[in-house]
Amino acid sequence: MSSLDLSHCQELDRQDPLAAVRDRFVLPEGVTYLVGNSLGAMSKDVPARVQEVVATEWGQGLVGSWNTAGWFDKPLTVGDRLAPLIGAGNGQVVVGDSTSINLYKAVGAALGMRPDRAVVLSEAGSFPTDLYMLQGMTAWTGRHRLELMDADRGNLQQMLTPDVAVVVLSHVDYRTGELLDMQAITEQIHAAGALVVWDLCHSIGVVQMDLAGCDADFAIGCTYKYVNAGPGGPAFVYVAPRLQAEAQQPLSGWHGHKAPFAFVTDYEPGEGVSRFRISTPPIVSYAPLEVSLDMFAELDIAQVRSKSEALTGLFIELVDQECGGFDLEVVTPRDAGRRGSQVSLRHPRAYQVVRALMERGVHGDFRSPDVLRLGFAPLYLRFEDVWDSVVALRAVLEGEEWRSHPEPQLTAVT
Amino acid sequence: MSSLDLSHCQELDRQDPLAAVRDRFVLPEGVTYLVGNSLGAMSKDVPARVQEVVATEWGQGLVGSWNTAGWFDKPLTVGDRLAPLIGAGNGQVVVGDSTSINLYKAVGAALGMRPDRAVVLSEAGSFPTDLYMLQGMTAWTGRHRLELMDADRGNLQQMLTPDVAVVVLSHVDYRTGELLDMQAITEQIHAAGALVVWDLCHSIGVVQMDLAGCDADFAIGCTYKYVNAGPGGPAFVYVAPRLQAEAQQPLSGWHGHKAPFAFVTDYEPGEGVSRFRISTPPIVSYAPLEVSLDMFAELDIAQVRSKSEALTGLFIELVDQECGGFDLEVVTPRDAGRRGSQVSLRHPRAYQVVRALMERGVHGDFRSPDVLRLGFAPLYLRFEDVWDSVVALRAVLEGEEWRSHPEPQLTAVT
Repeated sequence: MSSLDLSHCQELDRQDPLAAVRDRFVLPEGVTYLVGNSLGAMSKDVPARVQEVVATEWGQGLVGSWNTAGWFDKPLTVGDRLAPLIGAGNGQVVVGDSTSINLYKAVGAALGMRPDRAVVLSEAGSFPTDLYMLQGMTAWTGRHRLELMDADRGNLQQMLTPDVAVVVLSHVDYRTGELLDMQAITEQIHAAGALVVWDLCHSIGVVQMDLAGCDADFAIGCTYKYVNAGPGGPAFVYVAPRLQAEAQQPLSGWHGHKAPFAFVTDYEPGEGVSRFRISTPPIVSYAPLEVSLDMFAELDIAQVRSKSEALTGLFIELVDQECGGFDLEVVTPRDAGRRGSQVSLRHPRAYQVVRALMERGVHGDFRSPDVLRLGFAPLYLRFEDVWDSVVALRAVLEGEEWRSHPEPQLTAVT
Repeated sequence: MSSLDLSHCQELDRQDPLAAVRDRFVLPEGVTYLVGNSLGAMSKDVPARVQEVVATEWGQGLVGSWNTAGWFDKPLTVGDRLAPLIGAGNGQVVVGDSTSINLYKAVGAALGMRPDRAVVLSEAGSFPTDLYMLQGMTAWTGRHRLELMDADRGNLQQMLTPDVAVVVLSHVDYRTGELLDMQAITEQIHAAGALVVWDLCHSIGVVQMDLAGCDADFAIGCTYKYVNAGPGGPAFVYVAPRLQAEAQQPLSGWHGHKAPFAFVTDYEPGEGVSRFRISTPPIVSYAPLEVSLDMFAELDIAQVRSKSEALTGLFIELVDQECGGFDLEVVTPRDAGRRGSQVSLRHPRAYQVVRALMERGVHGDFRSPDVLRLGFAPLYLRFEDVWDSVVALRAVLEGEEWRSHPEPQLTAVT
């Protein structure tokens, strides 16, 4: 096979049906941004929309904007607009709060629906906040306990005992970039009589998915990665329609009440998914998300996924071709159907390599202890950027440029 | 006593040391805004600051801004800047999440510190979301229960049984505007061996307070009322320093971890108040709060409180003088030391009166079933506005203008 080169990458860019989308984003000069899996870049339409919310809706409309500007129902109306990204429909998604809080709602509701089962099952390699929240929750009720399957989930079936009420899984593993088979695993969990909560943080916006078709029970996720909704943009929770009458979550704030403005003393859960609301939503932070959802509404998510697969595939091929012999290991599955939109590379000096890449304008991410995590956001990355990043990586490794950067300083955990 | 008139009010404005602060706010033409106790007006500096956060910090700084723009520590650094408003010091306040969630944290921590006591005591007249959250929380753990004292709190002492772990009280009653004696009540609760959580939503920014001096245990509140931080601005939680080593809250997300970036499997609470953080803060929504805190740093809160007392006092006097015989009852205490910055009036047609006032440019608030709730924000209201609002009220009542407005339509609660 002849080797891949820059002109090949440029040809891919010329053929890319999404190439023009890049122009709709602000991207700093001289930066190849491979951290869109942590914080997505900003659409150029964001500043004007935020300005409108602040100066017009708040400044002029004042408290009346809770009605006239549709503020009060943002968690539901924006939820309906986000739903197509995850294969859901109207009345199934609430947007608001953080991923951690939405996890609490979903797992709390699931536990309430399986009162004779005590176990929350998750994965040892889960993003830590999921584990921490589940630890806090099970310690708090005292009647539940958290069990963890192996990081590679190889013992899922074995751990699906009759005492498992709910299983929490990440659709894409944040370390390895592995994409799980939502349909098959959901079936497997249901066969054991348990419910599932899918964490979509690392798949929403880049992976086609069909929560309804997979018969998933609950899903949660954030919007600030591939959905580009800005730092700490509101998170979301999905509740399958067939569960909505029964599902009740423990964070029962007034916006989830059946009649929030009746100011009655006793909580009564609202209709449908609205009971997954808690309280006053952070309106200004919704604006960038709305801009992003406007953009997604114009895009074909199949094209987005296809470009994502092509970007990550090209990166892996180029690493093989250019960076052999440098102690790099591709952690992410080589089968495109089994990976999200990131490529993780293991290297004993991963932290230092990330720092050195940054000096060359390639922004990547480090995950302790030894993983370089590179996200490929298909809306604003070019195939040429993939080429540039591999050239930079080769230079850093070949010249041992990482040596001039300090070892990681992590706060010790006693 | 000679009657008060417009020129008297204008004279008060001329003598007002805070008069110039009004010019720093956006206020729509022709509106007398008496809903600052619901959503505060916007400072003119907000749009530029929000723009900076969006266009520069996010757009240009991208993920690096978590460090370089101080995003990651906003909940603590902004907490330190908010602390003087509530009589607290550095390292005692976390800003983030919603009031409801912060209530959950504070009450959860308090219950953990009184393991032999099962009761959460609150007030029947509390703002409903506090009650709803406590109902959800106690049902969820199963080992705690919520008890409610009378709406006037007259039976507090009687209800302070040895089984009470924590008492949740609003510093200012959202319906009546009554200001509680934080010092005396905190002592009373401590004498019964319980802890207290003060809800400061309706007092922060207008009432001088001294959480430290009162030896309060926990406090929570929002920032979008008299602190003018915009719709859904981040809320806060205060934890007394003497409790911080022991207090653990059940919503144990990764930002509250001792070493959030070590990505270890087990939760270990962070030092001090940091363990009251949960997860990724909504950065864009912090910007208006920071603008407000900049403004408050220049102000003398004693002057703010003094003007607040004068505004509400003048309003009550003018209602007495101008609106006698119209079936209005002043619900708020006439003793300035016993009220917050609002005046509540009871009227059988309260909802319709509020609508009719709005047609005259006076924006007020209705609370079911029969209360007009008028907030007097001292930073941007003039004494002349008080005059105008009473003149409008008199006209609405005298001309029975409320008759042309429909009766309230509230969603029925079954």
